[in-house]
Amino acid sequence: MLSQLSGLYGQNLFESVIPFWLRHSIDKEHGGFFTCLDREGQVYDTRKYVWLNGRQVWTLSKLYNSFERRPEWLDAARLGAGFLRRHVFDDQGRCYFSLTREGLPSFYQRKPYGAGFVALGFWEFAKASGEEWYREKALELYARLSGWIANPALLGRPALSGGTASSNLADIYILASLALEIGDLEMLRKCLRDIRLHVDPATGLLHETATLDPSLRKSTPDARLICAGSIFEIYWILGRALRLCPDAEVEALLLRALDAACELAWDQEFGGYLYFIDIDGRPMLQLESDMKLWWVHCEAIYALLRAYLQTGESKWLNRLEAVHNWSWSRFPDPRHGEWFGYLHRDGTLSHTLKGNNYKGCFHVPRMLLYSLLDLQAADGR
Amino acid sequence: MLSQLSGLYGQNLFESVIPFWLRHSIDKEHGGFFTCLDREGQVYDTRKYVWLNGRQVWTLSKLYNSFERRPEWLDAARLGAGFLRRHVFDDQGRCYFSLTREGLPSFYQRKPYGAGFVALGFWEFAKASGEEWYREKALELYARLSGWIANPALLGRPALSGGTASSNLADIYILASLALEIGDLEMLRKCLRDIRLHVDPATGLLHETATLDPSLRKSTPDARLICAGSIFEIYWILGRALRLCPDAEVEALLLRALDAACELAWDQEFGGYLYFIDIDGRPMLQLESDMKLWWVHCEAIYALLRAYLQTGESKWLNRLEAVHNWSWSRFPDPRHGEWFGYLHRDGTLSHTLKGNNYKGCFHVPRMLLYSLLDLQAADGR
Repeated sequence: MLSQLSGLYGQNLFESVIPFWLRHSIDKEHGGFFTCLDREGQVYDTRKYVWLNGRQVWTLSKLYNSFERRPEWLDAARLGAGFLRRHVFDDQGRCYFSLTREGLPSFYQRKPYGAGFVALGFWEFAKASGEEWYREKALELYARLSGWIANPALLGRPALSGGTASSNLADIYILASLALEIGDLEMLRKCLRDIRLHVDPATGLLHETATLDPSLRKSTPDARLICAGSIFEIYWILGRALRLCPDAEVEALLLRALDAACELAWDQEFGGYLYFIDIDGRPMLQLESDMKLWWVHCEAIYALLRAYLQTGESKWLNRLEAVHNWSWSRFPDPRHGEWFGYLHRDGTLSHTLKGNNYKGCFHVPRMLLYSLLDLQAADGR
Repeated sequence: MLSQLSGLYGQNLFESVIPFWLRHSIDKEHGGFFTCLDREGQVYDTRKYVWLNGRQVWTLSKLYNSFERRPEWLDAARLGAGFLRRHVFDDQGRCYFSLTREGLPSFYQRKPYGAGFVALGFWEFAKASGEEWYREKALELYARLSGWIANPALLGRPALSGGTASSNLADIYILASLALEIGDLEMLRKCLRDIRLHVDPATGLLHETATLDPSLRKSTPDARLICAGSIFEIYWILGRALRLCPDAEVEALLLRALDAACELAWDQEFGGYLYFIDIDGRPMLQLESDMKLWWVHCEAIYALLRAYLQTGESKWLNRLEAVHNWSWSRFPDPRHGEWFGYLHRDGTLSHTLKGNNYKGCFHVPRMLLYSLLDLQAADGR
């Protein structure tokens, strides 16, 4: 099966996904990337979303750095990086969430992830272009990121006495992603420590939000929230960290969490992985909780591929085959390229768009590229 | 049909809906109302959500003031009003979005609606209890509300150069609701002027967000958004304003908007009203756009009842019958009381909860009570 995947993923990445974004997302007039693209690639919102602009700079630069030095990839990455450089920062050096087509600030989000994705994009682009300014700016953002995470009041979110001190998988994910690139082993060790806070002892699942006060564990919907997609993603990101900072205990807990997430979130009735689940089966606040999202399935595919390559156990290959088949027959659009993003629980399309304010040129091409690279490496062993 | 509705709605209100909230939502220990209640009424999140606490104070006080002076309704309203009085305000007199069970601030939202619903609740409770403090506080909040709407920077949302000056249906709705109670005719006349900004000339629909710069009309998903539920709600709220400030032109535009919203949003395939629609059929950013929500259907029922009572035209009665039948067979829970809130597009349940951070004791009982009162008044004519 794996050799078949390799061919399929290469074809999808280079003939469908990347061409879709290169053809439709690039704003040659003002720079930056449109991400609100309909099924055919028509722009339905000209605003520039910062998470996705940072991520697309990363994707194009990563392709250039790790696959082939195609000038068209670097040129496109430069259009995005330059746009962000000119427009994304406020007077305190924080990042906006969205900009107008021309680059005026449109919305400010009280979260640190925009800055995280800009830093990731800048770092990778600096490697591709050799432009030192982006490397230094990425390091500066990285240096401030931990402070913004620890103290959201710096981003305008007031500290409230009834707030709950907690650790978020998303924070560990973004810090580990950057620390891996930058080679900050101290941070990686901190991430590998912090992940233990998230373990549910009974099931081995990882809480999306871990309350630091154990008496508040599972006390709110947030504290009971399980997002299988986040567990898939953290599994392989921290798997990379473990190569640099080995820790057998964390390795085991990550594999157990992956196993538990697959068991819990696979939909026995309709197939595919459910988006959000309450660990105690209580009601969910998110209206989209039972939908099937492209990124969850991308992360599942890559996590399960890694688990199989790591362990050689057939249960991972069986799960990979199941999620590949389920996803492949529903998400990719053979007619206009790229993947659909959003399905109802029963697998029918709920949205025909290819991109919006949270879906861009990132999860699909990253999964395809990383799978290809890992399969090549495994072949060469 | 109408006399049948009267019996059904009275029974649902007094034997199912209100008993559910009185039995399960009241926190006798700390005051305030739990609203995160599962199908059976069990609390799954003890936080107190401010929109819904204000709204429940309103509902219980309104029942007391307009239907019957039952002490249990006033006592329950007092537990909510007192909790808000003690805990909802920050040091600048703004309202938090959520509080812990004990009343510590948990989350602060950069929107004016929490304050609006607290003001509505306080005003109605002051009428019920005769307690002057609540009346004065409601007036004070009302006086500040227009300023908060006009200048969200006062609520911590920075004014950005790429933001779009616009008018929101939700703002007109909350201001008109309060102005009707308080008898502020000048504000009502302003609301009746502002609604004209929302009209789409081609269809007669009302935009959820009307851009003040006509060149930006329909330029973004926000500016193309149609929410039929908001049109249903604004139809009857401004209908009440028109009794005090007659304006034949606005009366006609509201009836045309109601007609257009019914045509656009009724789901020909599965029945029921879709939640969000793009006026140009472009993709939607909201993942829940094709779901069927309880409040949209409550607002449809009451708006269509009013349209029929106002005009006597059979098309409104036919639509009322259709939405009543569709809703009645899906939303109310005959086993544990109250209504379910969230259905998939095909009408199957997506969530079994009875309340959450946005669904509380408000749209269902308000629709039932107002329908009853209007049917009684029509009977007496």
